[in-house]
Amino acid sequence: MPNNSAANNSWVLHSVTAAQMNTPDLGLLANASLAVVDGSIAWVGENSALPKRYKALPAIHGQGKLLTPALTDCHTHLVWAGSRASEFRQRLHGKSYEAIAAAGGGILATVTATREASEETLFAQSLPRAQALMQQGVAHIEIKSGYGLSLADELKQLRVARRIGNELPLKVTTTLLAAHALPPEFKQNPEAYINLVCEQIIPAAAAENLADAVDVFCENIGFSRGQTERVFQAAKQHGLPVKIHAEQLSDQDGSALMAEYQGLSADHLEYLSAKGIAAIAESGSVAVLLPGAFYFLRETKLPPVQALRDAGVPMAIATDANPGSSPIMQLPLMMHMACSLFRLTPEEAWLGVTRNAAQALGDNNQGTLAPGQRADLVLWNLSSPEQICYEFGINPLEKLWVEGKLVTDN
Amino acid sequence: MPNNSAANNSWVLHSVTAAQMNTPDLGLLANASLAVVDGSIAWVGENSALPKRYKALPAIHGQGKLLTPALTDCHTHLVWAGSRASEFRQRLHGKSYEAIAAAGGGILATVTATREASEETLFAQSLPRAQALMQQGVAHIEIKSGYGLSLADELKQLRVARRIGNELPLKVTTTLLAAHALPPEFKQNPEAYINLVCEQIIPAAAAENLADAVDVFCENIGFSRGQTERVFQAAKQHGLPVKIHAEQLSDQDGSALMAEYQGLSADHLEYLSAKGIAAIAESGSVAVLLPGAFYFLRETKLPPVQALRDAGVPMAIATDANPGSSPIMQLPLMMHMACSLFRLTPEEAWLGVTRNAAQALGDNNQGTLAPGQRADLVLWNLSSPEQICYEFGINPLEKLWVEGKLVTDN
Ligand SMILES: [Zn+2]
Ligand SMILES: [Zn+2]
Repeated sequence: MPNNSAANNSWVLHSVTAAQMNTPDLGLLANASLAVVDGSIAWVGENSALPKRYKALPAIHGQGKLLTPALTDCHTHLVWAGSRASEFRQRLHGKSYEAIAAAGGGILATVTATREASEETLFAQSLPRAQALMQQGVAHIEIKSGYGLSLADELKQLRVARRIGNELPLKVTTTLLAAHALPPEFKQNPEAYINLVCEQIIPAAAAENLADAVDVFCENIGFSRGQTERVFQAAKQHGLPVKIHAEQLSDQDGSALMAEYQGLSADHLEYLSAKGIAAIAESGSVAVLLPGAFYFLRETKLPPVQALRDAGVPMAIATDANPGSSPIMQLPLMMHMACSLFRLTPEEAWLGVTRNAAQALGDNNQGTLAPGQRADLVLWNLSSPEQICYEFGINPLEKLWVEGKLVTDN
Repeated sequence: MPNNSAANNSWVLHSVTAAQMNTPDLGLLANASLAVVDGSIAWVGENSALPKRYKALPAIHGQGKLLTPALTDCHTHLVWAGSRASEFRQRLHGKSYEAIAAAGGGILATVTATREASEETLFAQSLPRAQALMQQGVAHIEIKSGYGLSLADELKQLRVARRIGNELPLKVTTTLLAAHALPPEFKQNPEAYINLVCEQIIPAAAAENLADAVDVFCENIGFSRGQTERVFQAAKQHGLPVKIHAEQLSDQDGSALMAEYQGLSADHLEYLSAKGIAAIAESGSVAVLLPGAFYFLRETKLPPVQALRDAGVPMAIATDANPGSSPIMQLPLMMHMACSLFRLTPEEAWLGVTRNAAQALGDNNQGTLAPGQRADLVLWNLSSPEQICYEFGINPLEKLWVEGKLVTDN
């Protein structure tokens, strides 16, 4: 192991095809070199134009392979305890949702297991999910709370998320999603739960610096537009940006509300209206598409991709990794589904897990190959960027660097 | 490395949950031991009942993990050259199928690339696909020809398939699918191509022992029922069992024809009729379901799973790995899709990639944990069999043995 971290984090990679992610066509540059200095990208350009000052750095031959920014999974719920696989099995054997819910199943099963789990147990169960994403080239993961649904348990989830970021060589951005579902003890009094979220949970998460943003599940079966706005106001008071689970199962006009608050993103969006699209476009927020939930719930209503495209809304793609509606820890599979199911172009799929995903997390320091960006990079054994959107099953990751350090080498 | 191969292939694994695959509920046995002697399963039962004669063998502690037969992928086309990823990209950018076909795209692009490729190139391009399947627990792969469509090129594909089986520690079963598509040089004369298949290709493949079975793509856009029967007759004359791509896009009554010939399996089956189901049930053939093609082609017509179940037809699941309609080399993803899209139970999904998949290949020596079977085994880091059908993305494979030899150890 080299012990000189400056040397370790300063090097040149040459003879790659660089996907700079700076234009809609991905800004592909053949015979490219990239110089990393102290963990940041210092220079990108043609091999022949590499400035002299980088020629003394250790050099790596890229063999003509594809170089991209490392991937960002900008919407996950991957900290949870327990498993709902046996519920899934029961449903496939004919047991109804109602019967399963009556037996304590559904999201409440996850809430119960997450509340009962110690921080240590929750960490141990969640870590492999983040590791699996990392093995696919992900260097930045957003992780939401939302299975604690009490002051102590929401903070516990967020602490576990932070710890994953500390113990793995990747960046974790946390989101407080206390307004994910109504906890059973507030069944008769949703407004009292919103009070708890606004008056206690958000302030505590902000005070402990545990949340980078605040999210709400705005839906018939979640929280109303009015309740969502109360949560957004509390977030604003504490200086936290907002985002929203919106228009997944019905049009609640939630995206437009997020846009009023200049939120980071509106996520799901199958039922998004023209008004909602215009609002997102106006606010400069990101539309996050979640094909895993669409696939797993066997939805048929597609998100309005062409209208989002026409409006110039940046689209991101994420796993939505969660134990109920998208139990999938595979971002490249989401790229595949975004193309096959949602008909995104491969270029849109790539931008959706790099530049636009970073934007959805408010991160200006990654997602493109440009000087000044963090050197979070992947070298892929791919002959073209579209190949990963088409041929699924062989992990094409060759090398993953985070802040210039090689963390995976296949 | 142990150099005593007998010792290497004789051992006891204890303290596992064994899924014996001998009953519809998978025959789960907790606290189980399994004894392997000379690469075959010698004994399975409870830890406490292990016969004395096995107690001197090297012992492995299974830590309560799940032990199953290794997986079988009973329908693939994984020997091909070239890539159609750029065509896929063009389609997503709005180019029509017709324009792509007119430019030499579609299956003919794969035929051209496969014909042009040397045996060495074809092998090098195909090997990683088989390796990827192996890394997921697959120890037996069926590989079809069908992209050569000439005497020399069909045999070349089959030789490459055989070579994959020789160079990797897994079993390959080959299927001659010369009647996959009409080659361009026979465009005006399909009957002449069928003559070539029956009079030259089948006899040559049989003479060189390159094919274990014969398959036909019986469809509006493939070959008619009458043409299919001619191919089946030729196969029968050469002692080769038959199978069929049937009822994928329309009902051609192909499954019933396969049943008349006591074929191994009918594959796809979205448009299978009650008559076809009865015929398959009567002949004792296997119904092979291919959710990857259903997913990738965005089909909406589901195969008649409940009717197949009611008729007692054994169902198998496979990747259909191919460069056009199912570019997916992931058998566990097919188990996931079989459950989520086709509503198979997890038990049916497991039997579909073990016992029933082996039956679809006419292999009586694998697919269950029973004395006398080949010791092709997987130890899984799973808390229950259904978990792999539900949570996708973390490779749960811990150890894979083929004929008692440890070939993958994660
Ligand atoms: Zn979500
Ligand atoms: Zn096929």
